[in-house]
Amino acid sequence: MFEIIHEDTTTGARVGKLTTAHNTVDTPVFMPVATKGVVKTLTPTELKDMGTRAIISNAFHLYLSPGHELIQSMGGLHSFMGWDRAIFTDSGGFQILRKEFKFKLNSKGISYMNSRDGKRHMFTPELCMEIQGGLGSDIAMVLDDCPPWGSTRDEVRDSVCRTVNWAQRCLNARCNEDQLVFAILQGGTYPDMRQACAQRLVKMGFDGYGIGGLSIGEPKEVMHDTIKSNVPMIPPDKPRYLMGVGSPLELLDSISLGIDIFDSAFPTRNARHQTAMTGHGQIDLRRAVLSNDPRPIDEKCECYTCRHFSRAYLYHLFKESELLAMRLSSIHNLYFLQELMRNSRKAIMDDRFVDFADQFKKDYL
Amino acid sequence: MFEIIHEDTTTGARVGKLTTAHNTVDTPVFMPVATKGVVKTLTPTELKDMGTRAIISNAFHLYLSPGHELIQSMGGLHSFMGWDRAIFTDSGGFQILRKEFKFKLNSKGISYMNSRDGKRHMFTPELCMEIQGGLGSDIAMVLDDCPPWGSTRDEVRDSVCRTVNWAQRCLNARCNEDQLVFAILQGGTYPDMRQACAQRLVKMGFDGYGIGGLSIGEPKEVMHDTIKSNVPMIPPDKPRYLMGVGSPLELLDSISLGIDIFDSAFPTRNARHQTAMTGHGQIDLRRAVLSNDPRPIDEKCECYTCRHFSRAYLYHLFKESELLAMRLSSIHNLYFLQELMRNSRKAIMDDRFVDFADQFKKDYL
Repeated sequence: MFEIIHEDTTTGARVGKLTTAHNTVDTPVFMPVATKGVVKTLTPTELKDMGTRAIISNAFHLYLSPGHELIQSMGGLHSFMGWDRAIFTDSGGFQILRKEFKFKLNSKGISYMNSRDGKRHMFTPELCMEIQGGLGSDIAMVLDDCPPWGSTRDEVRDSVCRTVNWAQRCLNARCNEDQLVFAILQGGTYPDMRQACAQRLVKMGFDGYGIGGLSIGEPKEVMHDTIKSNVPMIPPDKPRYLMGVGSPLELLDSISLGIDIFDSAFPTRNARHQTAMTGHGQIDLRRAVLSNDPRPIDEKCECYTCRHFSRAYLYHLFKESELLAMRLSSIHNLYFLQELMRNSRKAIMDDRFVDFADQFKKDYL
Repeated sequence: MFEIIHEDTTTGARVGKLTTAHNTVDTPVFMPVATKGVVKTLTPTELKDMGTRAIISNAFHLYLSPGHELIQSMGGLHSFMGWDRAIFTDSGGFQILRKEFKFKLNSKGISYMNSRDGKRHMFTPELCMEIQGGLGSDIAMVLDDCPPWGSTRDEVRDSVCRTVNWAQRCLNARCNEDQLVFAILQGGTYPDMRQACAQRLVKMGFDGYGIGGLSIGEPKEVMHDTIKSNVPMIPPDKPRYLMGVGSPLELLDSISLGIDIFDSAFPTRNARHQTAMTGHGQIDLRRAVLSNDPRPIDEKCECYTCRHFSRAYLYHLFKESELLAMRLSSIHNLYFLQELMRNSRKAIMDDRFVDFADQFKKDYL
């Protein structure tokens, strides 16, 4: 179900094919985020038009509302949201561990406060797999415990124990044979903890491995070093998924380290805040100088937005708070990253990934 | 440029073809409203997909921002907003006569306060035509003076004088030979005033005639009677445009009275406020009973929304304040009215418009 097509000769970059219950996904792949069963402002048709082959939704959020049982009764998440390609579901471990949920960790799982009824509930590895089974996603992520950046060794050791224990329970609770299950490596930025976590998870035999707990405040070099040391801990024939990373330069760096799968709300969130990516870096679509600029966001881009509209029109739409502005910039930013992935895959196939990435970085900075 | 294809045998309804600089528009036609150069939340592609052949924008609003000169420098409004079919532009007379603009009427035109610079400005018939010429719309509406519902005879008499005077000045200031110019009938709900206004406007010889000053608070019967008495005042070979009316039953009634063209923000505004039209009346998409309803908004509808999504999904999107909810319901409501127009035209061609309208009303109520 994961096949490596070509490995770069000078970096860890590789092109692969991940086959899921719904389709085949070429890697390296960037997944738009559909936390609540929708990629904000966009339709499935628009995502397909830009070449998207996988998206990621969130088990915990959909459990809270509208509920996995409701979605299951509607034929599952694919049918509910009108998306017939691969869906990853994140467990929600990362989302639940926030102050607003007044969470408490114990041996069973995560106790949290649901503001809708004001009561405490338990989120367990078993429930997490039940939800993802009900949603019918192609790939389920295990429930993990992501310690905040800056946690002590002792805290991280506890978190690794919990993560490993929960991963095993998720595997035991697997209820859908067609669904792939990915584990998530934790261990903060302590190399030995990461190693311990990885060894135990790999022994359990998952379909793929997420690298979690990064891009949460640590310095960029620390993130880079952690990815670099984590990748060899994952069996080379398994897909490697760096969770929550989505800026163009981080994507290229991580691809060269051997990452296959990415997701991030970065391109869509930025788009809604009037920031667009171009081959020459980010631009603020509300800068006055754009108000009479007849060029598209990026002259080399072939997305729907760039084929039809000028910067001046986008400036006007943002100024007038027209929602179409958010749509058009979201389409552009996601297309930009999908195109970056397409070009990366081509470059790897042609053994010129280093040159490609260097040139992109030079233009982008 | 306006050709009558078929007249109903029992009502005033008729099918026509209005040829503009950009395309031919089959009438009766309903135009989505693009006040600021965008039909709220939607792309031109979506409007085309639902069969839209004409939209209406607003000269005064585009003059305030981003300015007609800027739009002209971008190749005109069609190019600016990416729409290559017919564009009507309303003069903005109706929009400027509001408290927020602290307007004062005088012989030159309308003096108003622009909140962006805090200064008073003049909006004149000549400026109004200059703006519409610059925008390059297919059809320009003259600057008119719409008196509020409940105005006295004397007030309405003054308003008719002004409207007639301004219409002549607009005609004199016409600067674009390819642009059709429509006059607007006023006269409140005083039949003799309406008659006087119409006679003088018709004598000037416009390309079409709007019926203005309705749907602004008067009882439905008064509106109906006013349309009924106004239609014969317009030469039968000219298009008749009832401004600002867009509920399904009002559309059918007005078609039977001989109206050819409609516009209204009603379907898109309602859609953004979670109200959708169906063959069996309006539904509130936030009603709890829809939360697990697997049916589309309207089972007979073939719009993008109804082909892909359930009421349950729309309920979920509205509950989570996802902007896609507004898009999908806007697409549905506009498609619903476009389909009503298509079916009306077919029924008129087949001499069964009365039966068609009766059946629609019976199901809708």
